[in-house]
Amino acid sequence: MRYVRFRDPAGTVRRGIYGDSRLEAAGRSYDIDDPEIELLAPCEPSKIVCVGFNYPAHADEVDEEIPERPSLFFKTPNAVAPHGATIELLPRKEEITYEGELAVVIGEQCRNVDAADAENVVHGYTCMNDVTNRDDADLERNWVRTEAFDGSAPLGPAVATPEEVPEDASIELFLNGERRQAASIDELAFSVPELIEEITAYLTLEPGDVIATGTPSGTGELSGGDTVEIEIEGIGTLEHGVSSPDGE
Amino acid sequence: MRYVRFRDPAGTVRRGIYGDSRLEAAGRSYDIDDPEIELLAPCEPSKIVCVGFNYPAHADEVDEEIPERPSLFFKTPNAVAPHGATIELLPRKEEITYEGELAVVIGEQCRNVDAADAENVVHGYTCMNDVTNRDDADLERNWVRTEAFDGSAPLGPAVATPEEVPEDASIELFLNGERRQAASIDELAFSVPELIEEITAYLTLEPGDVIATGTPSGTGELSGGDTVEIEIEGIGTLEHGVSSPDGE
Repeated sequence: MRYVRFRDPAGTVRRGIYGDSRLEAAGRSYDIDDPEIELLAPCEPSKIVCVGFNYPAHADEVDEEIPERPSLFFKTPNAVAPHGATIELLPRKEEITYEGELAVVIGEQCRNVDAADAENVVHGYTCMNDVTNRDDADLERNWVRTEAFDGSAPLGPAVATPEEVPEDASIELFLNGERRQAASIDELAFSVPELIEEITAYLTLEPGDVIATGTPSGTGELSGGDTVEIEIEGIGTLEHGVSSPDGE
Repeated sequence: MRYVRFRDPAGTVRRGIYGDSRLEAAGRSYDIDDPEIELLAPCEPSKIVCVGFNYPAHADEVDEEIPERPSLFFKTPNAVAPHGATIELLPRKEEITYEGELAVVIGEQCRNVDAADAENVVHGYTCMNDVTNRDDADLERNWVRTEAFDGSAPLGPAVATPEEVPEDASIELFLNGERRQAASIDELAFSVPELIEEITAYLTLEPGDVIATGTPSGTGELSGGDTVEIEIEGIGTLEHGVSSPDGE
């Protein structure tokens, strides 16, 4: 099953079942582009735990190694943007990049989860663009300005439950219609169960929290006017626009 | 005025006015140690933005300099613990430390705030213990295991509105009754308005969000059985216990 969150014509936030460009909720059916409804991010994370350098080919392209244990960082709730949003780049930054990622959506409050039991706490999977302000990455001890600015986590369009997503699902990112990233999620160095075990050794995860599992090779720069599509097999396609405050 | 959040005997979460060890809400008065009520953290941050190395004497003691711009990192909502809590240390860690801090509580949703206008978005101030797992600090690129583990942000007891807190208010931390930190909040290298301007250039802050302004010199190790008190002039005293999963 694939679930979306949306605001219906009366302004009520509802959960719907997502099919081929239609969604069904409370006995009604809507086109997802119906201007009377508003697609929302498919979950409301209290935190997004992101993983760096988790595809070998991406680690290579940024001159990093796969670390001994997962390299973690945060995006905060202000970073979330829905499918269809136009995210605004930061002013006076040279290099803000796209990074298509498989995002795990947590279903149960959990702490100290063994990898062997991790599937029990997964609600499903969605697509995320881990938008990154590289200008600041080497200038700050912790990636706050780099990773947590407003709009730096487009999420969606739907949460697909695990049986919808093959273990070797393809993940692709298209910039203005041109394919820039293509990989399979079975290339992840640290698997989803391993990530859940490591993170919950320290932090309680809540329903709706997100783990962004890292990006494949092929990341690149965003500019005002760009359109980004991230497609993961079994989930669907997250699409969003980009605007620049510098008027590019 | 000083405000607390608490759960009343019927289980309802209420805001009360905090006086000398009593709180008043909805025409009733409670002793804050009344076992029929439960004191909660005084706000519900969607994120805690922490500032490192912001008192010159502390930067000295950890061999750091005051940076050119604020050194920022996150604690996430799972880190919050209320006044009166007993926080659990992480297993198999050698050095988990206390760091008493002045915490700013945001009152308005805001972005791109000029320092000159920053007072308009401050609801008030509370006390925070920035509990830090130093074992992991040099082992991870971003301080996730180091700073955001469960219970690493005791907050409270009350939010004091700005007029209650002198510009040179004293901040003191007592470990098992012995004074370990003592400073004035006017020693902050980056002031509260400067911090708000810098953070909101990147992130929207929400009502209840917290900025932890950094710790004075005198930080030190915590052990199971310890009691920590952080007292800031005009706010009150945050007190919490410590337990160790290693059975210390």
